[in-house]
Amino acid sequence: MKHIGEFQLIKQLTKILEIKDKNVLVGFGDDCACVNVESKKLVFTADIQIENVHFLKDKVKPTQLGWKLISVNVSDVVACGGVPKWAVISIAVPKNINIKWLKEVYEGIKKALDFYKFDIIGGNTSSSSEIIFDLFLTGETEKFVSRSGAKPGDYVFISGHTGLSRAGLELLLMDKKDYEDFEKRLIKTHLEPVARIDLQEKISRYATACIDISDGLVGDLGHISENSKVKIILEKEKIPISADLEKYCKKYNKNPYDYILYGGEDYQLAFTIKKEDIIHFKNEFLIGIVEKGEGIYLDNKKLKEKGFEHI
Amino acid sequence: MKHIGEFQLIKQLTKILEIKDKNVLVGFGDDCACVNVESKKLVFTADIQIENVHFLKDKVKPTQLGWKLISVNVSDVVACGGVPKWAVISIAVPKNINIKWLKEVYEGIKKALDFYKFDIIGGNTSSSSEIIFDLFLTGETEKFVSRSGAKPGDYVFISGHTGLSRAGLELLLMDKKDYEDFEKRLIKTHLEPVARIDLQEKISRYATACIDISDGLVGDLGHISENSKVKIILEKEKIPISADLEKYCKKYNKNPYDYILYGGEDYQLAFTIKKEDIIHFKNEFLIGIVEKGEGIYLDNKKLKEKGFEHI
Ligand SMILES: Nc1ncnc2c1ncn2[C@@H]1O[C@H](COP(=O)(O)OP(=O)(O)O)[C@@H](O)[C@H]1O
Ligand SMILES: Nc1ncnc2c1ncn2[C@@H]1O[C@H](COP(=O)(O)OP(=O)(O)O)[C@@H](O)[C@H]1O
Ligand SMILES: Cc1ncc(C[n+]2csc(CCOP(=O)(O)OP(=O)(O)O)c2C)c(N)n1
Ligand SMILES: Cc1ncc(C[n+]2csc(CCOP(=O)(O)OP(=O)(O)O)c2C)c(N)n1
Repeated sequence: MKHIGEFQLIKQLTKILEIKDKNVLVGFGDDCACVNVESKKLVFTADIQIENVHFLKDKVKPTQLGWKLISVNVSDVVACGGVPKWAVISIAVPKNINIKWLKEVYEGIKKALDFYKFDIIGGNTSSSSEIIFDLFLTGETEKFVSRSGAKPGDYVFISGHTGLSRAGLELLLMDKKDYEDFEKRLIKTHLEPVARIDLQEKISRYATACIDISDGLVGDLGHISENSKVKIILEKEKIPISADLEKYCKKYNKNPYDYILYGGEDYQLAFTIKKEDIIHFKNEFLIGIVEKGEGIYLDNKKLKEKGFEHI
Repeated sequence: MKHIGEFQLIKQLTKILEIKDKNVLVGFGDDCACVNVESKKLVFTADIQIENVHFLKDKVKPTQLGWKLISVNVSDVVACGGVPKWAVISIAVPKNINIKWLKEVYEGIKKALDFYKFDIIGGNTSSSSEIIFDLFLTGETEKFVSRSGAKPGDYVFISGHTGLSRAGLELLLMDKKDYEDFEKRLIKTHLEPVARIDLQEKISRYATACIDISDGLVGDLGHISENSKVKIILEKEKIPISADLEKYCKKYNKNPYDYILYGGEDYQLAFTIKKEDIIHFKNEFLIGIVEKGEGIYLDNKKLKEKGFEHI
């Protein structure tokens, strides 16, 4: 069988479906779908954590896993300018699951729900050979921020450092007895990402396009570029390298840009704004500009738009 | 580890969570959760189909699997008196999945969406060792029909025959080269259940309580009995046995009541109504009455309230 990749696959599958309801403002192709309910705009998203795909049971605390499940979903809602409201959780666990462990996952979920201020209101339970936590999150937004609104002349921002999560994952997989402090911080970034709900209002007000960085900066900017039909030029010297990532790359002889550009699971936001709105983004990183054309460039080098793909 | 069962487990897990939003009209414990959005009542539910738990890949057509995924979710919405509106699908498949097979699942999904008249508007794709289709369905209801509204004096109805699906599953697992016609019909009931969306208006208008029968008639009536704090008495001679199930039980020397009372995956509705509303339910089966007390009885024998439990 020919290997077609996750994004091609999704395109082929969604082509089979056909959205008929006129109240659906946004269907496939963005971080969330969006529907009109009277004067409200509701957004819908789903994200899953699967054993041995998204986490190794022995390498994550159950509370961290619960926290991450919630955070990765909130991240998609915030990327659309929305706030999280109600979620339904679907779990599948082996018949001999340790109940104490599972309760601790729910303690982590509870902590995240309190932090992001919304509720899980229903769920579903099944058995399975591997552990699965799937979350369906409904949010509300005043203005839907899509992947398709970037315009030539806009500035490109990221909300924080990227690449740390992948370094953290690699460290975790090294299975070392002792970790240095900076290594522990990288691992924490991987296991306990924080969705940028603090930026929700600003994104909603000023972003012309936004995406959350789950599959790597370049891959995800590629979605903005493709959907907005624009070229994005990143300026290498403007892209921030975190001190911890720098230490990591020195110690293990790695190229930091492999991490920053292609890392994955950062759960920072990449967004574009009109030039005049730059004053509102003092704590975020301006990393490039939008131009007519297509593709993602680092200075004048065209980048491969590869991101993390499951399939 | 002590075995606590699925329903005890869900109780312990949901106790950790706490619903704070005053717009949530119904949280855990019913077929759907329900929230107020302006003048509308939205309902939320999730149901999953997992390889080797809900289906065997070699024994189901992909189109049937897609159909069933949608039907089992619609069934929960109808049980609350609602109509399905928008869904998000979360799939996880092995990296080497046959794309043609997967597209056929989506063809089955599409057929069901056309039949039940709603849209899938978003999704998520991941890899996994076993195939998973998880659906999150949002519906709308004028009046939420719960599991807790049954009152002494009410009549108990089912929307159709039960037990057929389990017989169909057993036939499927027998792996026979040839099946008789009635056997083929039983297998079809198992693989292609039809949610009773045709009864949605009547349920919404007249049912004092309702549940969809996914885990077996007695187990699911047990939820109505427990939540409504009432006793339910079934009259054995009123409970219908389908001709096909009767043939099956004769041929394989089985007790039909094991199937009718405890089968599972029927996706019929069990509901209670006020006596005076009986005229509206000519095509459904009156099988018993609601009294003060607790438990499920067959004539005067107390039944074990066991239903299908995953854990
Ligand atoms: N893992 C879970 N976490 C939170 N709530 C759950 C979970 N599993 C089930 N629930 C809730 O518990 C109730 C009972 O679930 P269940 O009996 O499986 O319903 P159904 O048979 O209609 O799918 C439902 O209200 C559901 O929302
Ligand atoms: N299996 C699927 N079926 C239908 N739509 C899907 C599926 N998987 C993903 N989608 C849709 O495709 C788009 C891209 O998905 P994805 O890139 O995974 O988003 P994200 O990275 O934000 O989770 C989204 O709009 C999503 O709703
Ligand atoms: C054990 C393990 N191996 C690999 C990874 C890396 N990984 C898993 S998923 C993923 C990308 C994010 O994918 P997903 O969570 O499915 O998000 P989506 O793209 O749907 O937003 C990455 C980098 C991991 N977290 N854990
Ligand atoms: C291969 C296989 N084994 C066993 C079954 C039987 N089975 C699986 S789930 C289930 C009950 C329904 O459970 P679920 O779909 O999880 O519904 P819920 O109770 O959540 O509504 C039954 C009887 C099956 N369908 N297929």
